[in-house]
Amino acid sequence: MRGGLPCLTTVFEVRAVLDEARRESHTVGLVPTMGALHEGHLSLIRAARAANDVVVVSIFVNPTQFGPREDFARYPRDLERDRRLCEEAGADLIFSPSGDEMYPEGFSTWVDVEGLTVGLCGRSRPGHFRGVCTVVGKLLNICGPDRAYFGEKDAQQLAVIRRMVHDLDMRVEIVPCPTVREADGLAMSSRNVRLAPEERAQAPALYRALTAAKNLVAEGERDVATVEGTIRGMLAFEAPLGRVDYIEIVRADDLSPVTTASGQCLMALAVFFGGTRLIDNVPVTV
Amino acid sequence: MRGGLPCLTTVFEVRAVLDEARRESHTVGLVPTMGALHEGHLSLIRAARAANDVVVVSIFVNPTQFGPREDFARYPRDLERDRRLCEEAGADLIFSPSGDEMYPEGFSTWVDVEGLTVGLCGRSRPGHFRGVCTVVGKLLNICGPDRAYFGEKDAQQLAVIRRMVHDLDMRVEIVPCPTVREADGLAMSSRNVRLAPEERAQAPALYRALTAAKNLVAEGERDVATVEGTIRGMLAFEAPLGRVDYIEIVRADDLSPVTTASGQCLMALAVFFGGTRLIDNVPVTV
Repeated sequence: MRGGLPCLTTVFEVRAVLDEARRESHTVGLVPTMGALHEGHLSLIRAARAANDVVVVSIFVNPTQFGPREDFARYPRDLERDRRLCEEAGADLIFSPSGDEMYPEGFSTWVDVEGLTVGLCGRSRPGHFRGVCTVVGKLLNICGPDRAYFGEKDAQQLAVIRRMVHDLDMRVEIVPCPTVREADGLAMSSRNVRLAPEERAQAPALYRALTAAKNLVAEGERDVATVEGTIRGMLAFEAPLGRVDYIEIVRADDLSPVTTASGQCLMALAVFFGGTRLIDNVPVTV
Repeated sequence: MRGGLPCLTTVFEVRAVLDEARRESHTVGLVPTMGALHEGHLSLIRAARAANDVVVVSIFVNPTQFGPREDFARYPRDLERDRRLCEEAGADLIFSPSGDEMYPEGFSTWVDVEGLTVGLCGRSRPGHFRGVCTVVGKLLNICGPDRAYFGEKDAQQLAVIRRMVHDLDMRVEIVPCPTVREADGLAMSSRNVRLAPEERAQAPALYRALTAAKNLVAEGERDVATVEGTIRGMLAFEAPLGRVDYIEIVRADDLSPVTTASGQCLMALAVFFGGTRLIDNVPVTV
């Protein structure tokens, strides 16, 4: 690697640096990422920068959160570009371990959150959140941050990690950050670059459909089947290349499905364009 | 509770006390127990006392490590006696949370170690080590000790916890302490008090059989089936009230069964006397 932001690859090194920071009573903010950074990640880094003395960005394409038929091998990787972006956004340090550093021979411990992981993305990605919890648990233990930053685009991931941190008494503040969108409304995702031009042109329909559904609820519609049907209809019309994985309205706190919209809800969906799976969500308060 | 050693019941309180200790650069040793303390526990407390500035003993009969037909309700409890013993052994603090403090409404996160938990006690106690890992993970996160102390009597538990701590990058030194035995060789256990007099009289046969088997190996016997058969035969003769759960010789590192004794092994057994299940083990090096 060329000069610029320090990019550490071992647990030992990153601990040594962060221990030194803590000895000087510096606070530490962690932004866990899988690289291929976009404006969403950069907003997390800037939020961490504003609130902590030291900002660590972890860049690790975590194999254990990908299913056997998912896109681990194809997941976009560009560490040089990521490093430049981290530096510009104000990070102090990158932790970019190898697969063997995180999962050495004999690795056999897993963190599981039940309940919250059953529906939504959990249904079509069995084992995904086990991989997420395990790697985030490890990253939190390795870095020992005061705060860790996660995007609201991954709403279920955020809820699951909060649950894990609370249940296991991990000492870190989980800071959620709003979804960052392209000008046309498409939620930023590292996977967007993998969309073909005609898929990319249709992808903003996801957010338009969620927004239309939110307006429908604001106008008084409470029947979830009707609202979900509206989203499905809009997607069929505006994103015919998309294949819906799920469209669901769930309670914001425990992600349990609702049949009648009330209280704090989340409208969430996942749509495949070819092999690329996009997710998005909007909060709805009735 | 009457005076004496401070006995804190909430995560908040114990953290406040230990944070203060750490601010003064004091090291912390944790001895996790389920109470009903005996000389084995006290040896852990003394070891912790010798190596740390602050010694915390947690006393929590963890419901999640008991199976539905196991002895959670009958497990011996005597907090006043335990407090006195902790104080005499040199502890500074007891953490004795309620079930609700450790597992509040909505709790749904579990830590699992695969592989190591399949055989031995794991076979007849499904879910036991999941409960152990989860509660020990929580206790380590709550107390943040520099060192945590576990008895070698629970050999599989020790191996599983070491695996968890290593895999999840938890920052604590796991310190094993030798099994403490009664004068007649019976391994100390909180469950020994539940033995009927005639069961108690036969129970030392477990260690005698293990010792005889160890001598057999020292004299050149390598066939594990022969050695296990010898243990089984001795138990049938000397402990007819006992019902063998398992007798196994495993590799010391990964607890995998061996058919020919070689290297560092562990001879381990579990025997029921009525509803009371006793375990014991001895290391064997060939």
